[in-house]
Amino acid sequence: MLLVGESINGTRKGVADAITARDADFIKALAQEQVEAGAHVLDVNGGVAGGDEVADLLWLIATVRSVTDTQLMVDSASPAALHAGVEASIKDDGKVPFINSISGEQSRIDIVVPLVEKYKCPVVALCLDDEGIPATAEDRFAVAQRLHDELAGVGLPREDMWFDPLVMTVSADSTAGLVTMQTLHLIKTRLPGVRSTGGLSNISFGLPNRPLLNRTFVAMCAGIGIDGAVLDVRNKQMMATVKAIRALRNEDNFCGQYLKAHRAGLLE
Amino acid sequence: MLLVGESINGTRKGVADAITARDADFIKALAQEQVEAGAHVLDVNGGVAGGDEVADLLWLIATVRSVTDTQLMVDSASPAALHAGVEASIKDDGKVPFINSISGEQSRIDIVVPLVEKYKCPVVALCLDDEGIPATAEDRFAVAQRLHDELAGVGLPREDMWFDPLVMTVSADSTAGLVTMQTLHLIKTRLPGVRSTGGLSNISFGLPNRPLLNRTFVAMCAGIGIDGAVLDVRNKQMMATVKAIRALRNEDNFCGQYLKAHRAGLLE
Repeated sequence: MLLVGESINGTRKGVADAITARDADFIKALAQEQVEAGAHVLDVNGGVAGGDEVADLLWLIATVRSVTDTQLMVDSASPAALHAGVEASIKDDGKVPFINSISGEQSRIDIVVPLVEKYKCPVVALCLDDEGIPATAEDRFAVAQRLHDELAGVGLPREDMWFDPLVMTVSADSTAGLVTMQTLHLIKTRLPGVRSTGGLSNISFGLPNRPLLNRTFVAMCAGIGIDGAVLDVRNKQMMATVKAIRALRNEDNFCGQYLKAHRAGLLE
Repeated sequence: MLLVGESINGTRKGVADAITARDADFIKALAQEQVEAGAHVLDVNGGVAGGDEVADLLWLIATVRSVTDTQLMVDSASPAALHAGVEASIKDDGKVPFINSISGEQSRIDIVVPLVEKYKCPVVALCLDDEGIPATAEDRFAVAQRLHDELAGVGLPREDMWFDPLVMTVSADSTAGLVTMQTLHLIKTRLPGVRSTGGLSNISFGLPNRPLLNRTFVAMCAGIGIDGAVLDVRNKQMMATVKAIRALRNEDNFCGQYLKAHRAGLLE
């Protein structure tokens, strides 16, 4: 299971302050902590209210790059920032970053497809379109199918398409978890070879004991076969669950990483 | 998700001692604790080394019945005990018990199918046969299909067939979890309407932090759609996971039971 560290995100207060103040030590520590905790990819989002997103994102990328060569996931709603961030990430070390994200919205397709065509970046593809987030799994899958066809049309291999079935809040709609899982199931069965991922913690918004719901939901999606997750890799209990998932999915030879985590006291 | 309390089992030391000594208070407390913890069904297994299994099981059933009318699951390897236990359970209150279990072994088919034909008991059906436990999901499913046909042939409705994909130990075979999950997936997709269950804690035998693996595996199987589980309902963390699963599968209207458990301090 591919783990994307979610923490370097300008929509979070501490990170926003660090970006505004150009507090490089704060960002470096956040990058290093996530890599040490097991992140395979680091999401970087420089969107701060009132900031210059292109300049902020380029500073973020350079700062993260100064302490780790972990693959990046360039995360932006802004076409200019996405473009600059992807190119900066490539220029730095030749490694191609993930793009977060494309969706079925025509404006996103117009921005992201040319970038994917040019650089062959792996891309997170959200199952929503100009009509919003479809209520049913079949309608979300229809968006996934359309995005698959767009991305395949510019030569992106299936294994670089990371479909996100979208996670809504179960406290607002009791069927939210089911619709996400059904969408994931459709993606896994009808588009073999593509990947799937999600920012799963939305599921628990507004409920107590959110970590319990979050890690249980990650395990449920792992049973269906989710290939990755964007999450707080610094959460010890979540990572203990991920280590158990890997042992149970035969992604951990002879449970070696699980046993190592146990000896390090990380599974308590 | 149907929860079967596993604790009244003569293969466990404390229970064996209580059966031998006819310590009714011990058994009554075990029954009541499981019902209070949320068991919908109580497994009763009177198999004690050197004991008279028929007499022991009948005593167990009468003892449990004296404190609760919760549905029972008569669990025995002995044809005579199974027969006597099922008939005693029915005679007591007219409620039909579960049978644990039939398998593809001809001797079990010969014993259990006539009981099912006569009493229409819901039955746990193990995916193994006279050749042993099949190594692959397809071969385990073939046993499930054969048992389905046998049970349908005597008029048992699909919703009373509870297929157990069998859980082996992941520390001995890294693919054990995957094979169980793949078998479960085949059962859910190829035999719509049947139920699925399992004694899932085998998965973690020989590894540290077994509760973490057990509850993660239950959640993974819940994502695939498992309908029930035979487990220690007195384990607080496992039950917290089950409450999260129910909220996430829309089995808990407006998350009411989840919130109630939170207020009672059961999710910590």
